[in-house]
Amino acid sequence: MRDLMAGLPATVAWRGDAEDGVLLLLDQTLLPHAIEVLELRDRDGVVDAIARLAVRGAPFFFYGSGYHRVLPAFPASPSAERRTAAIAAAIRAEAAVLAEARPTAVNLRWALERCVTATAAEPSLAALLTEARAIHREDEASCAAIGRHGAALVPVGGTVLTHCNTGRLATAGDGTALAVLFAAWRAGTRFRVLADETRPLLQGARLTALELQAAGIPVELLCDGAAAGLIARGEVQLVITGADRIAANGDCANKVGTYGLALAAAAHEVPFYVAAPRSTFDPSLADGRAIPSEDRAATEGTELAGHRLAPAGVPARNPAFDVTPAALVRGLVTDHGLLRPPFDAAIKQMFAAGR
Amino acid sequence: MRDLMAGLPATVAWRGDAEDGVLLLLDQTLLPHAIEVLELRDRDGVVDAIARLAVRGAPFFFYGSGYHRVLPAFPASPSAERRTAAIAAAIRAEAAVLAEARPTAVNLRWALERCVTATAAEPSLAALLTEARAIHREDEASCAAIGRHGAALVPVGGTVLTHCNTGRLATAGDGTALAVLFAAWRAGTRFRVLADETRPLLQGARLTALELQAAGIPVELLCDGAAAGLIARGEVQLVITGADRIAANGDCANKVGTYGLALAAAAHEVPFYVAAPRSTFDPSLADGRAIPSEDRAATEGTELAGHRLAPAGVPARNPAFDVTPAALVRGLVTDHGLLRPPFDAAIKQMFAAGR
Repeated sequence: MRDLMAGLPATVAWRGDAEDGVLLLLDQTLLPHAIEVLELRDRDGVVDAIARLAVRGAPFFFYGSGYHRVLPAFPASPSAERRTAAIAAAIRAEAAVLAEARPTAVNLRWALERCVTATAAEPSLAALLTEARAIHREDEASCAAIGRHGAALVPVGGTVLTHCNTGRLATAGDGTALAVLFAAWRAGTRFRVLADETRPLLQGARLTALELQAAGIPVELLCDGAAAGLIARGEVQLVITGADRIAANGDCANKVGTYGLALAAAAHEVPFYVAAPRSTFDPSLADGRAIPSEDRAATEGTELAGHRLAPAGVPARNPAFDVTPAALVRGLVTDHGLLRPPFDAAIKQMFAAGR
Repeated sequence: MRDLMAGLPATVAWRGDAEDGVLLLLDQTLLPHAIEVLELRDRDGVVDAIARLAVRGAPFFFYGSGYHRVLPAFPASPSAERRTAAIAAAIRAEAAVLAEARPTAVNLRWALERCVTATAAEPSLAALLTEARAIHREDEASCAAIGRHGAALVPVGGTVLTHCNTGRLATAGDGTALAVLFAAWRAGTRFRVLADETRPLLQGARLTALELQAAGIPVELLCDGAAAGLIARGEVQLVITGADRIAANGDCANKVGTYGLALAAAAHEVPFYVAAPRSTFDPSLADGRAIPSEDRAATEGTELAGHRLAPAGVPARNPAFDVTPAALVRGLVTDHGLLRPPFDAAIKQMFAAGR
């Protein structure tokens, strides 16, 4: 199989060393129309990139934010001592702020915790960059494990429906739900994909379509509202999505539109799976009602590519996520195995088993 | 209340007499950005307008097509006799072709039948225009009756969710589902509306938002995928949509995305109603499986306002309709009263009662 993202720059990269480097981010808001790499040297630029989803995908946040933590202390402070103190303070103080950049994504918080912990003893930029690179490598391995644990779910000759983008543009590796599809394809399973366009920001139409096309996997787009009818017609054999946060009972918060898919799948007994690494689980939350939900700007709903869709003066509601109750989920494909109901026990066991 | 569509030209009008007239259609594909009235003098222009949805809405077809029937014989034929024969032939021959312009909409077929029947004895253009105008007046009255029969369903102080456009831009009168909302508002009930944007053609964002805003009814847009999550959060007290065809058992074909709404409403015990005139019912079809479904051009899904959304070479599935099973419908608001389950009996009774 040819390189999945042949021709595209790396989703994220660090050029230079810890003392003098540039964070390179492929601007995903412009894909597939333009390939532009952001060169970020200060914190505000990185925060902005995360907030406007130039860099995105739940498992990705910790990677982007891990690198981001390298930046705030630039340019160099006059003394080494003051510099060390400044770095330590910046790492601690900004973790809370950055965690709010995307309140639903639990990976972001998890990664910030790791960065704070890893640099607590010796708050150097080099230590921070080392931790970020470790997170990167672990994420690659995590994606590969998700793919291994889920590949057998893909129906031979069947049609898989997915939502949003959960692939190489969303992670440091093959992704989550898309990692399952890539792994199945590599293993020789042949199937086709229906990709929800995923309004408002069209990650399905712009990014998932791009990734699947590059991998040679047959893909057709559909408007989000069309999924239920196609499921009812028997045109879908598997629905698989990612998640942004999973509660202790298996309730899954994910990109808005996922819950409706899960309802339609359940109504027609089509298996609905969620793929996510263990870092997406938040066992501190009893169920989905406790997951904070991000409402994003109304203009995401009323405009598209600068083109106003609605009459002037008409506002939009724009919840970014919804919650799929565990009862609608057939299984959770994690980097630590395929979890089956009852999820509360399976999730507890996954965490008890340690790293 | 100020005029619901103040400032807009009539959705459809006929200027001139039967022998030398122009069909005027407000081009709905350009709303709300531009107000352009199409002046149509030949059949191809009208067929094109129907096919690309410049004129649209299920109950509207018979009106547009009724007027359309006036046109094919222009310009005048040399002899009166040949002209009469030409008109009769055109009316008969083209009915079948025109019926296929939008295969799911049963009103179109029903209106063509009426046009053929009304002109069978004396196939004059004047008779055809008379029949079209009668259909127009009847549709106005039908919309008003739907409003009367449904107004009490609207929850005082509640939020109503609707899909696509079913108002004055879709009919000769106040509409179907929107007629219910307009009637409730006129009667003093206060409520707010969440309008699905309704991809791919955004009739909700462009047209429903425009109509509700003009009527002074508070409206917010949402992406189609967001509806299920908001219903789950308890933010919606009534879901009401129109229909393009209703089978003998009450199964409803409507704009793609309706079925998913009905599933979400059922999951949270929110009442789901469908508003449609009797001409939308097709008692010859036992259930929804027999309703033909129109698949429209893939470019509707891959492009928006000439802007390509997806990578080149990625196709789209674009079913225009889906079917909501009668079991998910709390009631059918018709111009002949509010039908309650079991719908097969209620529908039979409505037709048995005659006009």
